[in-house]
Amino acid sequence: MAVLPIAIENNEEKFMTILRIDAEARWSDVVVHNQTIYYTGVPENLDADAFEQTANTLAQIDAMLERLGSEKSRILDATIFLASKEDFAAMNKAWDAWVVAGHAPVRCTVQATLMKPEYKVEIKIIAAV
Amino acid sequence: MAVLPIAIENNEEKFMTILRIDAEARWSDVVVHNQTIYYTGVPENLDADAFEQTANTLAQIDAMLERLGSEKSRILDATIFLASKEDFAAMNKAWDAWVVAGHAPVRCTVQATLMKPEYKVEIKIIAAV
Amino acid sequence: MAVLPIAIENNEEKFMTILRIDAEARWSDVVVHNQTIYYTGVPENLDADAFEQTANTLAQIDAMLERLGSEKSRILDATIFLASKEDFAAMNKAWDAWVVAGHAPVRCTVQATLMKPEYKVEIKIIAAV
Repeated sequence: MAVLPIAIENNEEKFMTILRIDAEARWSDVVVHNQTIYYTGVPENLDADAFEQTANTLAQIDAMLERLGSEKSRILDATIFLASKEDFAAMNKAWDAWVVAGHAPVRCTVQATLMKPEYKVEIKIIAAV
Repeated sequence: MAVLPIAIENNEEKFMTILRIDAEARWSDVVVHNQTIYYTGVPENLDADAFEQTANTLAQIDAMLERLGSEKSRILDATIFLASKEDFAAMNKAWDAWVVAGHAPVRCTVQATLMKPEYKVEIKIIAAV
Repeated sequence: MAVLPIAIENNEEKFMTILRIDAEARWSDVVVHNQTIYYTGVPENLDADAFEQTANTLAQIDAMLERLGSEKSRILDATIFLASKEDFAAMNKAWDAWVVAGHAPVRCTVQATLMKPEYKVEIKIIAAV
């Protein structure tokens, strides 16, 4: 996929451009509007532990942001859903190895049962273009 | 309620207009700021099953967006809280019949106990004006 | 900390300023971008009941917004995670005493296990500068 321009050319238009990436029937992988990126990531390595699943999901976030010309230091807000609270330390270990200190997002972590029993983590972010 | 203008006239003002619709004491039904719509919907048909409750909530989203001159193809992000994971298929059935393929939002679904025992689903969205 | 200017001077720049307050290694306390404030609050009074913990968290929100030149009447969206659904009434009592009637945000409340067993509530908000 080509990197599409995100900048809003005409701020007086009522309808700002909405950019959708990998827009499937049920959901889009990424949506961009008004210089803001919306994304929810789930791990691809379903047999892995919480540390590896978190690292995998964060790497997907990196790749997605790079496609948009953004980067992890521009993430504004993260909501982390953990299937098991016991995985908090493992998730944090992957997070701490990844996050840009001093440029970390606001973060909220709660335990919630996820839709695939193999998912140990699901990460929702809002980022700046 | 009259449809109020949403467009921001003067972008240099520090304080952009905030539009609140059906602003009750405890919460507002809808809030609009900076061309972005915030909304959380719960079903009105409390005796219905998860399919019907989801369809009802999505129809409320449609009506709300229409009042604002927006539409479901302009939803950016959805967070779906399901009281029971067993209702994932029923929720998806209502969702798939409703969503605009190719213009779907980012979506995140987790299981969470909701505040009324009759609620089977609660849907939080962020949309573009 | 000095109150930093938030207004975006040059809307044509691709990279809008991101303001991070109390940016620690793992997360930032507050992030501001595109006239929008992101924040998640947890109570400091860990031994207190849900009413007191909610009031404490809401008071932290007030203080944070004041630092940014904003105020509680400019909150757009709130997501409240309650460790126990039984605390819904106690949380609402603190909320109702605090919220500005007619200027309340959209609100979504769900039950979720939180990362510290002492936390009875965690509140995530999006606000306008």
